[in-house]
Amino acid sequence: MADISDVRRYIRENSDTYLKRLKEWVSIPSVSSNPKLRPDVIRMVNIAKTEWDKLGANTIIKDIGFQETADEVIPLPPVLFGQIGNDANKKTVCLYGHVDVQPALISDGWKTNPFKLSIDDKGRMFGRGASDDKGPALAWLNVIEAFQKSDVEIPVNIKFIFEGMEECGSVGLEKLIHDEKDKFLKDVDYVCISDNEWLGTQKPCLAYGARGMAYFFVSVQCAKKDLHSGVYGGAVSEAMVDLMTLMSKLVDSQGHILIPGIYDSVVPLTEDEEKVYSSLEFDPEQFRRDISAPKLIHDSKEELAMGLWRYPSLSIHGIEGAFNDSGCKTVIPKKVTGKFSIRLVPNMELDKVEHLVKSYLENEFLKIESCNKLEVVLDHGVKAWVSDFNGPQYKAARIAVKKIFGVEPDLIRDGGTVPVTLYFQEALGKNVIMIPMGLCDDATHSQNEKLDQFQYFKGMELFAEYINQLAHV
Amino acid sequence: MADISDVRRYIRENSDTYLKRLKEWVSIPSVSSNPKLRPDVIRMVNIAKTEWDKLGANTIIKDIGFQETADEVIPLPPVLFGQIGNDANKKTVCLYGHVDVQPALISDGWKTNPFKLSIDDKGRMFGRGASDDKGPALAWLNVIEAFQKSDVEIPVNIKFIFEGMEECGSVGLEKLIHDEKDKFLKDVDYVCISDNEWLGTQKPCLAYGARGMAYFFVSVQCAKKDLHSGVYGGAVSEAMVDLMTLMSKLVDSQGHILIPGIYDSVVPLTEDEEKVYSSLEFDPEQFRRDISAPKLIHDSKEELAMGLWRYPSLSIHGIEGAFNDSGCKTVIPKKVTGKFSIRLVPNMELDKVEHLVKSYLENEFLKIESCNKLEVVLDHGVKAWVSDFNGPQYKAARIAVKKIFGVEPDLIRDGGTVPVTLYFQEALGKNVIMIPMGLCDDATHSQNEKLDQFQYFKGMELFAEYINQLAHV
Repeated sequence: MADISDVRRYIRENSDTYLKRLKEWVSIPSVSSNPKLRPDVIRMVNIAKTEWDKLGANTIIKDIGFQETADEVIPLPPVLFGQIGNDANKKTVCLYGHVDVQPALISDGWKTNPFKLSIDDKGRMFGRGASDDKGPALAWLNVIEAFQKSDVEIPVNIKFIFEGMEECGSVGLEKLIHDEKDKFLKDVDYVCISDNEWLGTQKPCLAYGARGMAYFFVSVQCAKKDLHSGVYGGAVSEAMVDLMTLMSKLVDSQGHILIPGIYDSVVPLTEDEEKVYSSLEFDPEQFRRDISAPKLIHDSKEELAMGLWRYPSLSIHGIEGAFNDSGCKTVIPKKVTGKFSIRLVPNMELDKVEHLVKSYLENEFLKIESCNKLEVVLDHGVKAWVSDFNGPQYKAARIAVKKIFGVEPDLIRDGGTVPVTLYFQEALGKNVIMIPMGLCDDATHSQNEKLDQFQYFKGMELFAEYINQLAHV
Repeated sequence: MADISDVRRYIRENSDTYLKRLKEWVSIPSVSSNPKLRPDVIRMVNIAKTEWDKLGANTIIKDIGFQETADEVIPLPPVLFGQIGNDANKKTVCLYGHVDVQPALISDGWKTNPFKLSIDDKGRMFGRGASDDKGPALAWLNVIEAFQKSDVEIPVNIKFIFEGMEECGSVGLEKLIHDEKDKFLKDVDYVCISDNEWLGTQKPCLAYGARGMAYFFVSVQCAKKDLHSGVYGGAVSEAMVDLMTLMSKLVDSQGHILIPGIYDSVVPLTEDEEKVYSSLEFDPEQFRRDISAPKLIHDSKEELAMGLWRYPSLSIHGIEGAFNDSGCKTVIPKKVTGKFSIRLVPNMELDKVEHLVKSYLENEFLKIESCNKLEVVLDHGVKAWVSDFNGPQYKAARIAVKKIFGVEPDLIRDGGTVPVTLYFQEALGKNVIMIPMGLCDDATHSQNEKLDQFQYFKGMELFAEYINQLAHV
């Protein structure tokens, strides 16, 4: 086992450099969902390339084509591939990060300019992308530099993939990973992603799973144009009435999904897994208070975490085509589309879920004897991801966390969907881990996103130690 | 009986002027429900005043105070009062019109700019308000001018009330009419309103009734902020789920209202009334085809007309607070408000309906054992209106229709709500008639609203003849 105390010291002594770099990265409004800012996303990818090049990485810019927006065809940001080290005696880890960010405007309610990193007296660094995912992505670069500057041999071969479309569903990435599995990604032993958060603010975590997602559109049409309820109310079987009935059959107020068979393929809870839940540091009451919910569906931390991570959930997001403004409108909408999604867990298969949902809703529609037209569509979906947390990579990460933070990490899953985890795992058949850097209160995707300095610097030490441990497990 | 052939000829010869005026009125986006367009509504009222002033009317602008919106307090559009003629030997008719319109955007599906009157080769004049109610309101002005320019004495005293809040429930008008019943409205013998449509496209009609309306908001709240379904799905009892359940309990796909007791006070059908239905010229198949509905709730013309006019109906208009755009969003909305309304018929009382709806929904909410917060509010409501169709005013109007169109009019009701009919009838105790100008396919409140030139010009001749007949019945 190498001694990396010099590396860790170097990290502690160069915080100014790391802040300066993060400031620069945050200053670039690389919002991938805004076509007007696409040049900034591309610029951001190129800045990352330049920084890696300075460390002697072999980088390649992978062009992934174009995107058709409503108005125009614009280039997709290229994906940055890179490699440092090619020693057949070392293990190879592939690091993933993204340099695009969610939209952010002062007028959304930011207290500071979202594209100017602002550090307050508690060491909180406010800025869009600070936590998701510029901070963590940049941290890898800083860590590799720290090894080099400390003259400590990097104990593994490093490959990395930095993309610029994550916040838009990682367009093009699945195909690219698949295409490169026997080329650039051929020798990869492990995949490590830092694009998530701690479960709370006190205890470090490692994530070994994320739920998938199946997003459905249910449309009912009753006429070819919107109708006035004074002129047609009492004559027409209304689309909105049928839709309300269908949407009311999906899930109950206790969160139980009513679609027959939907739970059938859910992996049963094992004893081993149950232990992971009972050791979690997770406060349901704090979780509830943060959102001022009157009550949660589950009371205990174990049930709550399982409800969020290892069981499917169904959320109804909204209705397209109906009246949605404030005030009153006496319209009978011609066509309404209900939107709901199911968060999938292992081993729910998309095809099966699609079939269950469609046949259930079609059958419920038959029951109400409506003359209207029904259409149920699976808009998009991705399976759940779960990795074996007993393998060497997790062992290395757990030892690293213990060394840096002095405690065993919680093993968590992400209730949301991180498609890239699955892309890597399915294409390469290798173990994937998520090592979060930020905290649960970082407000990623929201106003006033931040990353704590402590988490940034300590996270780099953790990354260094993880690489160190990985070479020896 | 005066000879008004000169008046009718004048009307036929001045169509260019009438088109020009309608173009100007339609060009003003006097959308009363949009606070930002309030200045346009006020401007529209003032334009009407100026036009009437040119005819020598004594006009008064009645200030009716302010409106509190969610964000601000804005002035209500004033109400225009006016009078032409004050001869104690003549009868006095009060004309009512409104110069505000429903919202309209090109993006809603308009083929032309809704605020630019566009006339096609069939003489259809497309534009928001063309039929509801700028065309008919303006027609009265044109008719009075035609009498004056033809040097034919106006056979009745004219009073008129033009408002700018009709599409928002005629805010302030009920009180104003009540306050003025012994002042401005003291000598009124009849009230005539043209703010409705023919039952079909072939046969003229007179309306003697209109349904009332009770508009409800049902809100469910589950959190203080919108939540990400990846982070909270499976933990929170979702407001949208509860709302779907409640909304599904209101009415079935066959139009039957499910609220217990709601039909109890509906006036039983009389033989006299039944005859009116059987003599109607009304084609359910044409009615269905116009809107491309797959099927109607009722097959026969009698049942269909009764379903539209003399029985209550419940329509679900939409949801506020949920995701409503195209595409996908994985939000769990914090608070959602369902909007629905019940069209009321004689003798349904508002208080009673409010009580039935609230207690039913509160009870249904108890059944689902949700921890969320429910609020049911009657936003606004008005009782149904029905007038005696055997009195002198209806006789005058029937003779006038026969003279202009060569056929006896159908006696119809309006399935919609025209609160002002009731305000006048209840405050003054005088007979109220509705003489429609537009056709059933005018698409008022919908995309591509239109008024046929033929109806506009012929309607003016009818208005002139109605005034003429009214002086002698």
